[in-house]
Amino acid sequence: FVSKLPKTEVSIFSRMSALAQEHGAINLSQGFPNYPTSERLVTLVDHYMRKGCNQYAPMPGILPLREVLAEKMHMLYQVDVDAEKEITITSGGTQALFTAIATLIRPGDEVIIFEPAYDSYRPSVELFGGKIVPVILKAPHFAIDWQEVATLISPRTKLIIVNNPTNPSTKIWKKTDFEALEKLVQDTSIEILSDEVYEHIVYDDRPHWSLLQFPALWARSFVVASFGKLLHTTGWKLGYVAAPAYLTAEFRKIHQFNVFSANTPMQFAIADYLQDKDSYLSLRAFFQEKRDLFVEGLKASRFRSLPCEGTYFLLMDYAPISDLPELAYATQLTTQFKVATVPVSAFYASPYDQRLLRICFAKDKDTLNRALDLLIKI
Amino acid sequence: FVSKLPKTEVSIFSRMSALAQEHGAINLSQGFPNYPTSERLVTLVDHYMRKGCNQYAPMPGILPLREVLAEKMHMLYQVDVDAEKEITITSGGTQALFTAIATLIRPGDEVIIFEPAYDSYRPSVELFGGKIVPVILKAPHFAIDWQEVATLISPRTKLIIVNNPTNPSTKIWKKTDFEALEKLVQDTSIEILSDEVYEHIVYDDRPHWSLLQFPALWARSFVVASFGKLLHTTGWKLGYVAAPAYLTAEFRKIHQFNVFSANTPMQFAIADYLQDKDSYLSLRAFFQEKRDLFVEGLKASRFRSLPCEGTYFLLMDYAPISDLPELAYATQLTTQFKVATVPVSAFYASPYDQRLLRICFAKDKDTLNRALDLLIKI
Ligand SMILES: CSCCC(=O)C(=O)O
Ligand SMILES: CSCCC(=O)C(=O)O
Repeated sequence: FVSKLPKTEVSIFSRMSALAQEHGAINLSQGFPNYPTSERLVTLVDHYMRKGCNQYAPMPGILPLREVLAEKMHMLYQVDVDAEKEITITSGGTQALFTAIATLIRPGDEVIIFEPAYDSYRPSVELFGGKIVPVILKAPHFAIDWQEVATLISPRTKLIIVNNPTNPSTKIWKKTDFEALEKLVQDTSIEILSDEVYEHIVYDDRPHWSLLQFPALWARSFVVASFGKLLHTTGWKLGYVAAPAYLTAEFRKIHQFNVFSANTPMQFAIADYLQDKDSYLSLRAFFQEKRDLFVEGLKASRFRSLPCEGTYFLLMDYAPISDLPELAYATQLTTQFKVATVPVSAFYASPYDQRLLRICFAKDKDTLNRALDLLIKI
Repeated sequence: FVSKLPKTEVSIFSRMSALAQEHGAINLSQGFPNYPTSERLVTLVDHYMRKGCNQYAPMPGILPLREVLAEKMHMLYQVDVDAEKEITITSGGTQALFTAIATLIRPGDEVIIFEPAYDSYRPSVELFGGKIVPVILKAPHFAIDWQEVATLISPRTKLIIVNNPTNPSTKIWKKTDFEALEKLVQDTSIEILSDEVYEHIVYDDRPHWSLLQFPALWARSFVVASFGKLLHTTGWKLGYVAAPAYLTAEFRKIHQFNVFSANTPMQFAIADYLQDKDSYLSLRAFFQEKRDLFVEGLKASRFRSLPCEGTYFLLMDYAPISDLPELAYATQLTTQFKVATVPVSAFYASPYDQRLLRICFAKDKDTLNRALDLLIKI
């Protein structure tokens, strides 16, 4: 049997979570909250299950949920997105990303990504015969050199994948980045996939610039978001994608034969729950408190934290502590010091010489404090 | 923009369901139950959500659920399937089918299917550059001529897709069919995808022969099943796939970047719920009552029902009533006579001259009786 993805392994998130469990370590590796979700939201799911909403949702998702999302986009980004023809509910942000890539990529197509990059982009592109062309960004600034990006564009360039706020660098894109991107693609047929699953998790009153706000880009883009990040329910596997009607129509052709539709009672519950805008507007302050607690606490340790602009992750530089490469050090930190993290090298396919670990601070305060106690002792 | 699936339309199930709603017709088209699921099951989901099981499940699914399934397979089919390495929980049977096809199919590969065939097989295969080679079966017997199948095998044949019990023909495979299949593939590297989502819905005390019971076949197969069909919850979008370890490993490489994992609280609830074997052993009698009610009732009409061996569908021949082709007649039946069905032609890509409609009888008795009243008047 010849594998279609010979280089693909079990993802770093699964491996580090398993290692954490095996060694009784505090799991700050895989990105997920460890506190309860809203009781009101759970009660709504229960309500809709008992009401009998347990059969197939319409393939693109229930309309009331798509309408709430269109409203949210209008309020936050002053853009009119058509709930009927331009929004599709998916079985998680990951499925939206995969299906968008499936919709666009043919053998030989080139796809530009910015490394460090979320780990699903590369294998998804390669599964459809595409070729990844990475732009390599380095700590601590991870700044994009748009002149360098311009040199990577070729007649085969089909897609550019944007992730903003960025996992794992925690950087957010500036308006000027989008303007540069706009200029870069204006006379091409290059499409954009914008992974904005952390759109509501941005700090220090910075704006989140959504790709939806740049009409010339939005006209050629998929914009992906995640209810898991919005509602602290990564295990409910619900997300959504907005795209102009011509791209949505193509996306749905594949979506309907990939998963057909997404979880029905949870869609109804979320549609009700999001009527309260505070459910997502409160996320900034909620996570900023956690970020600040962790960054402050880490000052008493030998780790150096990098600036965190968005997402619920933080990068820590351990160069003053160990010469081990990242995976080896992350393993030691898990097995010996009982804190599980993710080596940032897992987000690069390119040669590499940084000494960084990513931690997830979407945890209750007690967990964060216990992890800090352990890290401070190192 | 050049579509990757230019011929693909919104699926017949979505279209007929939408037409039914628009015209206030009783919807016997898309296959889903219209009665409540078990209250105990709903209570279990509620319990696990409140217990905080709302984050990512392990990528292959929670182990307790996989263990219950391995037990079920052992009890029903006397086969030892490794819960750890050979079972994966998916976001529905459809996602399992799609991902299995994604795992196997490369451009130029040929895939044998039996028409009438479930509508997701063909576009999924074509998306990965594969070519469908159909074996065309005809009403009323839909018998497979294995000598004909043998002539369709080529050096490019990569996969044979089996659907048993069969949607929409309602036929079940005989032991001799499997023996013929075994002989056909024995000196080849052809793989099998066995869609057994209706495994528990078989009538008149017939056995369901699972592909799991044929070691030489199982060694090269994906076997797909669906919790939606098992628990009357098609909208929960949960299913599973069993495959030998070497195929499961490849499947999971794609699964983890397609959906990553499936709904967590529902997985826990189902693991508990299936401890009670009656939850699935009772399905035969439950659906047989509905089938018999409908078949009996239809005798007073001008429709002729075809023998129904399994699934929750029934085929009706309307040749004595109308000369319209199927889609036109199904449309008339929905808009004018207020009963929505599915034209069987939607399950064939080949030229066609039958006069059959498929109805779904997974409905409460009142609905079935009201539909019969309408059909009898025609
Ligand atoms: C799908 S598991 C990975 C979760 C995540 O987004 C991350 O840890 O980066
Ligand atoms: C996924 S919608 C189709 C449901 C079904 O299995 C059928 O109607 O055949």
